[in-house]
Amino acid sequence: MVLPSPLPGRPATRPAFARWMGTTNQITRTFLAAGAIPDLINVAGGLPDPEIYPTDRLAEIARRAVAAHPDEVLGYGPIEGLPALRDALARRFSAPALPLTRDNVLVTTSGMQGLDLVGKVLLDEGGLIAGQYPTYLGALDAWRPRAPSFRNLVLDAAGFDPHAALQDALMGAQFAYAVPNFSNPTGRLVGLETRQALVAAAHATGTWLVEDDPYGTLLYDGAPLPRLIELSAEAAPGEPYAGPVVAMGTLSKEIAPGLRIGWIIAAPAMIEALTLAKQGSDLCTSGVTQRIALAAIEDGLIEAIRPAVLATYRARRDALCAALAEHLSAWFDWEVPVGGMFVWAVARDPALDTDALLPHALAAGICYAPSSVFDATGANRRAMRLNFTLNRPERLAEGMRRLAGAITAFRRAA
Amino acid sequence: MVLPSPLPGRPATRPAFARWMGTTNQITRTFLAAGAIPDLINVAGGLPDPEIYPTDRLAEIARRAVAAHPDEVLGYGPIEGLPALRDALARRFSAPALPLTRDNVLVTTSGMQGLDLVGKVLLDEGGLIAGQYPTYLGALDAWRPRAPSFRNLVLDAAGFDPHAALQDALMGAQFAYAVPNFSNPTGRLVGLETRQALVAAAHATGTWLVEDDPYGTLLYDGAPLPRLIELSAEAAPGEPYAGPVVAMGTLSKEIAPGLRIGWIIAAPAMIEALTLAKQGSDLCTSGVTQRIALAAIEDGLIEAIRPAVLATYRARRDALCAALAEHLSAWFDWEVPVGGMFVWAVARDPALDTDALLPHALAAGICYAPSSVFDATGANRRAMRLNFTLNRPERLAEGMRRLAGAITAFRRAA
Repeated sequence: MVLPSPLPGRPATRPAFARWMGTTNQITRTFLAAGAIPDLINVAGGLPDPEIYPTDRLAEIARRAVAAHPDEVLGYGPIEGLPALRDALARRFSAPALPLTRDNVLVTTSGMQGLDLVGKVLLDEGGLIAGQYPTYLGALDAWRPRAPSFRNLVLDAAGFDPHAALQDALMGAQFAYAVPNFSNPTGRLVGLETRQALVAAAHATGTWLVEDDPYGTLLYDGAPLPRLIELSAEAAPGEPYAGPVVAMGTLSKEIAPGLRIGWIIAAPAMIEALTLAKQGSDLCTSGVTQRIALAAIEDGLIEAIRPAVLATYRARRDALCAALAEHLSAWFDWEVPVGGMFVWAVARDPALDTDALLPHALAAGICYAPSSVFDATGANRRAMRLNFTLNRPERLAEGMRRLAGAITAFRRAA
Repeated sequence: MVLPSPLPGRPATRPAFARWMGTTNQITRTFLAAGAIPDLINVAGGLPDPEIYPTDRLAEIARRAVAAHPDEVLGYGPIEGLPALRDALARRFSAPALPLTRDNVLVTTSGMQGLDLVGKVLLDEGGLIAGQYPTYLGALDAWRPRAPSFRNLVLDAAGFDPHAALQDALMGAQFAYAVPNFSNPTGRLVGLETRQALVAAAHATGTWLVEDDPYGTLLYDGAPLPRLIELSAEAAPGEPYAGPVVAMGTLSKEIAPGLRIGWIIAAPAMIEALTLAKQGSDLCTSGVTQRIALAAIEDGLIEAIRPAVLATYRARRDALCAALAEHLSAWFDWEVPVGGMFVWAVARDPALDTDALLPHALAAGICYAPSSVFDATGANRRAMRLNFTLNRPERLAEGMRRLAGAITAFRRAA
């Protein structure tokens, strides 16, 4: 067969990729390339320590899941998720003022899919998001194909009066987005008054309020604060919950990311809309991983491993902060986070550009996440996110030593 | 805490859902409601028979996958998929003229996700798709959030000259979409000459050509035809493959849908673009299900169960067609498909509206997929898709008996 070919020198050009693809940052490529650097200490990601994975129990759970529930596990399941898992999640996240039912729950294929679905349901091109700033990189990634605009909520700015500011900030937005527990990237806990103000603003304006909570149970000091969805239910009781908060979570930080199991808890009308979006995204989440997740929840696996997880991560947080104090206090300010996975280090010198520093850091064998990736415009160049959960204390200390060396070399070169 | 509430009688209104959500059909709701009808015979879906699932072997494979590869299975994996699975898929789909490498392969969380990613990468709002018509419902679902426009390719229309027609048809489209093997919904095999013409038109125009092949190995009679990507590689050799064909597949029909494992094979530049889209969709596919899929491929599980699968489905196809001949030949025309999962029955009377018939069919205890759902405009009301893989022969016969009764009642009522 002879196929017609374009004329020599005039190859047929392919149609252009969608416009949003030209707007992504290059950081993923940098990170991938970093993977090839020998002995690199990587504090850029949000990775759990693989040693927390309850491997033996999960292996047996996986066998049992397939053997005991073959039709449910191996077939197409309901788009919304397996009924038993939805019921278990409804029970887990109910509170006295927040009686949840299965109709409040959508199982998602990872927390990231939850963000993607929220974007599909709520964003036309250019739609407005009132997002906590700086903003989780993955959320920016998930929404980029819908080309949204952002109104930045700096919830901890000096002089910030949440009650005065938030109603205006939410007005006209398709949704607000916040990570109240140990925000990604800053590690900060959003305080009770700001939580109340966020919920009040969502109730007053009608705007959806997306509460992303992957880290809530990684609490190292003090008591937890009420979730936004609990505050919302207290203000407007009713069953099932029908308010504006869209609460998202994942098993990635509590058990293992490889399950790719997340959930969204929201008003039934929102769950229905998200279900329609999920239908065209992956039709349903794997029954295999859903049944493993359900067994892990029912067997108490999350609670069984939590004390060891918390002790490990608390010690690493302390090790990272001690190393920061020893090596980097001349250049950076930071707060010790009470939970989560990250320390946010802000340069004292506003001219210290963490994008420009990154190649020097990589050359010294340390990789961090620069602040530009947590800003939809990429303009924030003054800070860095440092993860403390993946590496052992001595590696964290060595990493901060390397970073100090990189900064010295960078400033000398500048 | 007292939250400000909207004034009584003036509840705060929620922001509108994205526009595309107003354009979906109601068929899913009808199908869901149908699930509650006792003793319903459902030939609407594309479901495999659960009895083909190799349950015991998959249970043991699942245990072994977690126990033997805990870090890979339980952690975050590469966005593109586990290297070993990408290699195995590259080997499986290579051909003498088509030497594939890992860089040609993206693992997807189901075939549906592959469609979603193609839409994200290639469609701005209103982008043009040249789609084989009638068109797989799931593809319409996946692309609807990007609000595309469609140019319908009726590849088997009377007098259709593929070489004359297809170059014009593909010109200016972002991509063409075809299911060459036992098209969903029609069950038709796209012939060799039309395949050649599709590939030639893609080469000449540069347009991407999406070859969706979930059913290729479900071949009951005769020999397989070359894949579009093979024809493309023959016309423009080179390694790795860099041509316009984007070939998609899934394990859902060969092993079990519940794994939600699919793949895309394409030029490395397209794989890179799709990877960027996958990053914001679910970050990576579950390592658990990827490792199970890899073990199933390496252990020869697909080939081990295929003879029984083919024998079962061939007998059911014959049973459905015999029942059609016995009960419905007065009203419908159809062809016996040589593969796949579906028979497409077209009403002789153009006024027989299969949307309007559906409630009568449900009342009689039989559910089919009406042709309107395979048309982006919903205008095609004259046909129905009948699945033959899920139900036993005697149920298929009873289903067609019920359908004949429903048509009689429907025509009497009209």
